[in-house]
Amino acid sequence: MTGMPVQERIVTVDTPSRTYDVHVGSGMLEQVGPLVREACTGEVACVISDSTVAQLYADRVLASLASAGWKTALLTFPAGEASKRISTYGKLLEGLAAAGLTRDDCIVALGGGVTGDMAGFAAATYLRGCEVAQVPTSLLAMVDSSVGGKTAVDLEAGKNLAGAFFQPSIVVADVDCLDTISHDLITDSCGEVIKHAVLSDPALFDELGRTPLNGGDLSRDALVRIVARNVEIKRDVVDADEREQGLRQTLNLGHTIGHAIEAASDYHLGHGSSVAAGMCCMARGLARLGETDEDVARRITTIVARYGLPTDTDVDHSVLLRLAHSDKKRHGDSINIVVPHAIGSVSVEKVSCERLASIIDAGCGTKER
Amino acid sequence: MTGMPVQERIVTVDTPSRTYDVHVGSGMLEQVGPLVREACTGEVACVISDSTVAQLYADRVLASLASAGWKTALLTFPAGEASKRISTYGKLLEGLAAAGLTRDDCIVALGGGVTGDMAGFAAATYLRGCEVAQVPTSLLAMVDSSVGGKTAVDLEAGKNLAGAFFQPSIVVADVDCLDTISHDLITDSCGEVIKHAVLSDPALFDELGRTPLNGGDLSRDALVRIVARNVEIKRDVVDADEREQGLRQTLNLGHTIGHAIEAASDYHLGHGSSVAAGMCCMARGLARLGETDEDVARRITTIVARYGLPTDTDVDHSVLLRLAHSDKKRHGDSINIVVPHAIGSVSVEKVSCERLASIIDAGCGTKER
Repeated sequence: MTGMPVQERIVTVDTPSRTYDVHVGSGMLEQVGPLVREACTGEVACVISDSTVAQLYADRVLASLASAGWKTALLTFPAGEASKRISTYGKLLEGLAAAGLTRDDCIVALGGGVTGDMAGFAAATYLRGCEVAQVPTSLLAMVDSSVGGKTAVDLEAGKNLAGAFFQPSIVVADVDCLDTISHDLITDSCGEVIKHAVLSDPALFDELGRTPLNGGDLSRDALVRIVARNVEIKRDVVDADEREQGLRQTLNLGHTIGHAIEAASDYHLGHGSSVAAGMCCMARGLARLGETDEDVARRITTIVARYGLPTDTDVDHSVLLRLAHSDKKRHGDSINIVVPHAIGSVSVEKVSCERLASIIDAGCGTKER
Repeated sequence: MTGMPVQERIVTVDTPSRTYDVHVGSGMLEQVGPLVREACTGEVACVISDSTVAQLYADRVLASLASAGWKTALLTFPAGEASKRISTYGKLLEGLAAAGLTRDDCIVALGGGVTGDMAGFAAATYLRGCEVAQVPTSLLAMVDSSVGGKTAVDLEAGKNLAGAFFQPSIVVADVDCLDTISHDLITDSCGEVIKHAVLSDPALFDELGRTPLNGGDLSRDALVRIVARNVEIKRDVVDADEREQGLRQTLNLGHTIGHAIEAASDYHLGHGSSVAAGMCCMARGLARLGETDEDVARRITTIVARYGLPTDTDVDHSVLLRLAHSDKKRHGDSINIVVPHAIGSVSVEKVSCERLASIIDAGCGTKER
């Protein structure tokens, strides 16, 4: 870091159950202690992190917490999605009890989406709920999973099938942490960033097209601004609708087919890449059926390709349909899909499984046709 | 059952997150299907029950559900508190997924407190929340755990340390189920019934003293009335305060010392018996320290003894203090206790651990002094 200090940005998220601030900036890990002190009650702050992130950042966060007067504890689990299961969750709960956490104390979730989801679920359920501060260290966690209060663990039957809606007391995002994230992972996360732009921000869409977020040409100031803008977009949706009954479902743009693509790859394809491909397939399928504009589908596909993300899938259509149908957003025999009408304008529509099959047929695996 | 049909009683519970009815009556198991049909959405009703209760009642409940148009599934686990753990909870979640439950479908919790707690927690967290109908079959579950939305599983570190606040969509209590509960278990549950009377109903206290609930002399009508009255008492407290921040804490009357007695017995002493003893110890200790009336302590001890429940404990005071201090209601170094001022009038008071030690010294193990 050289030159001018980077401006910190604060986005306030207001939900029926809690109001909290998302702090986005550079050098923020050193601020975690005082910020959590302001936002949370209690005496003990227990940091939950995976083995990789803990090695990189736990010392600095623990030192910051201690300097702000917190008694600290650290719980770690092996890095990777394979840890995101009930057995790890159970061990974390036992660890919180062993650390003597009371329900007035707080958990600090330091890491990517897996850590945020699992530490958030532990916070939602330990003693029936204690406070949690989210300190996302990956781009995906910063722009997506640290806002909105979704917490989860995987079941053997599928990803994120257990969890709770539970809001953090504060989110602290330090974009410096992105320096240790691989280019491939940054690229994958850009799938969700592009999704946010398609949802509600044509100007951001244009900017992302001009200067790719994964191109390495961004100033730290621009990075902070874009992350904060993504948080705002998600905030605006979540503000209006905490429990995913209407507007919030628009966040599932690209997810109906994307989840199916992700599951069909046995989760070898990243979430953001899957969402990007799902978004392209859905837009293309709808355009071919005359239900949205060809130009929208073309613009989405173009930017996705520019980022080096997949724009299609070669998974068998019947497999996609079956996996989409087992999604937890299904209601009986119908499923809600998100339709992009223009860049910045989408709607949720309930379709039958037969209709979804037609869209998949029209939009997926089109290279082979 | 002979003679007049027994009057069904309905208590409506209104909480910030949900309004639901508690139906108390005789022959209610056959009504579960239509009642759940009215209260819940969805197509699939998955009954969760333990091995003992499932053998007694699952067929009747499944038949009633099927007759009301539900597709049904049944998940069972081995009866007993030892099942109330994260691993069983994980298996139940996998079972719900295998049964194809969507978040519009519902869970029917058929059984005592362990089943209600664990099935309720599964409902609170499966797909981040689906509906649950509570069908309590034990006296304790009817008067206590099926109202208020507390759900829980045990950790190795202690009982009920994980869980969520989650309200049922309906509660159906069939007092006929009490015919298969042992006299000892009925007696144990009377600890909570007496507690409710001490909390807020001098007339119920007098009636319970005149005709013991565990004496076998009660008409079915009287049983329905007393169970419904207990539900009302708990409802009135929970209505006012869903998340245990004030009034709801009065339900912990007898629990500070009671939980410690229960834990010290390694859970061989029943919960209701422990609460009864805890209530007597607390009242006696406070009376000896001049903080409540001697007569209140005497009346509580007299009725508890009349039911054949323990009125004291011989557990070492330092052990009681340590266990009380590890209770999840502790806040930092102080703890909230419930002080009975008169039959029907109690208050919550925050005391230091030193003060609690004095109360324990004055009120517990008094036979030996």
